[in-house]
Amino acid sequence: MDTYAKSKLNKVRLNKRAEYDRKTVHKIIDDGLVAHVGFVDQDWPIVVPMIYARIDETLYLHGAKAARFAKAMGKGIQTCITVTHLDGLVLARSAFHSSVNYRSVVVHGHAKPVTDKDEKIEALTLVTDRIAPGRWDEAREMTDKELRSTGVISVPIEHAAAKVRTGGPIDDEEDYDLPIWGGVVPMRQVFDPPEDDGRLAPGTQLPESIKKLLAGNSG
Amino acid sequence: MDTYAKSKLNKVRLNKRAEYDRKTVHKIIDDGLVAHVGFVDQDWPIVVPMIYARIDETLYLHGAKAARFAKAMGKGIQTCITVTHLDGLVLARSAFHSSVNYRSVVVHGHAKPVTDKDEKIEALTLVTDRIAPGRWDEAREMTDKELRSTGVISVPIEHAAAKVRTGGPIDDEEDYDLPIWGGVVPMRQVFDPPEDDGRLAPGTQLPESIKKLLAGNSG
Repeated sequence: MDTYAKSKLNKVRLNKRAEYDRKTVHKIIDDGLVAHVGFVDQDWPIVVPMIYARIDETLYLHGAKAARFAKAMGKGIQTCITVTHLDGLVLARSAFHSSVNYRSVVVHGHAKPVTDKDEKIEALTLVTDRIAPGRWDEAREMTDKELRSTGVISVPIEHAAAKVRTGGPIDDEEDYDLPIWGGVVPMRQVFDPPEDDGRLAPGTQLPESIKKLLAGNSG
Repeated sequence: MDTYAKSKLNKVRLNKRAEYDRKTVHKIIDDGLVAHVGFVDQDWPIVVPMIYARIDETLYLHGAKAARFAKAMGKGIQTCITVTHLDGLVLARSAFHSSVNYRSVVVHGHAKPVTDKDEKIEALTLVTDRIAPGRWDEAREMTDKELRSTGVISVPIEHAAAKVRTGGPIDDEEDYDLPIWGGVVPMRQVFDPPEDDGRLAPGTQLPESIKKLLAGNSG
């Protein structure tokens, strides 16, 4: 099926901005680096930023914070993972119609620690390659000890919905006569020149992974 | 008091990265545009991106999504507001020590709809000025009808903690001999040239608010 089923959990209030097709949802997820992960701990919501990767219909979360998170998990706890990209400021002629252009995805599923070694390596490879494409293979091989002490959590995508706002402001018709600027200021994330840590072994070159990152700057 | 009290809710696991002083927390909050807001709805965590502003020790949230959110609120519901800035990719020689530089704040408090008109106007002024500094005064004045149909939620900062990672990778001592690049690729958000919507009244100029935004691009 190419769309996620609508449910009480993922139904978006403003329908004109909702998207449920898998391609759109996957693309927004795959364009991000850090997700905001929510879970419930003794009646309080907790939201933490975490690095993640997607394999098919499963999200993998990684981070030191995983420890606190994992502590609360037995057979899988209810989790919300939200990925947001800011694409621009929308300046309408009225404050009321001003907005931002964005793409966001909200995923719900039950989170569990990954215990299978191969699955963990696959997830960590992808997570590392999100920091910089191809970085896993460039880096020193992960030891068994490191692997054991790295927490990875898997969350199957049980519900998902995307919301997307694009384009200029929609002003009240009479406001277009006002001498007030209306339009969009596009935003994007860029990389600045890499700064090595001053401890490079002689002859060490800038890796392909970073060159690929920087090449994406123009996009 | 210049620091937030440590509690079960805001205690950060990795203490070396934790900050509880108000100035640090406020600065990270004030540098952001969109927060990830978590609340609990029938045992599920829900995390949505929302525009916000801070006045002293209160956060104000704004957005169409506020409707869904507010529905769940009677006398104030338990809310988590997280603001995250990505500052750079940290490429260590090992995948294990690779990381990202970031500043984040996690706030907890009880959310309530704002009903006082003056408080609502003050909050909306600040929220609008976060989209672009000074925009509230440039835009067409908000009507009473618009004001009534705009949802604003206030959340007093009851608990708060910041986490900050800066600097280069910390590799295992023996890995520094490897011919693998180690360092940081700084990241930041930039604005591209403004695009008007093609419906400007004759003679309308680019406003000061946008000029200020663009001037911040170099930082």
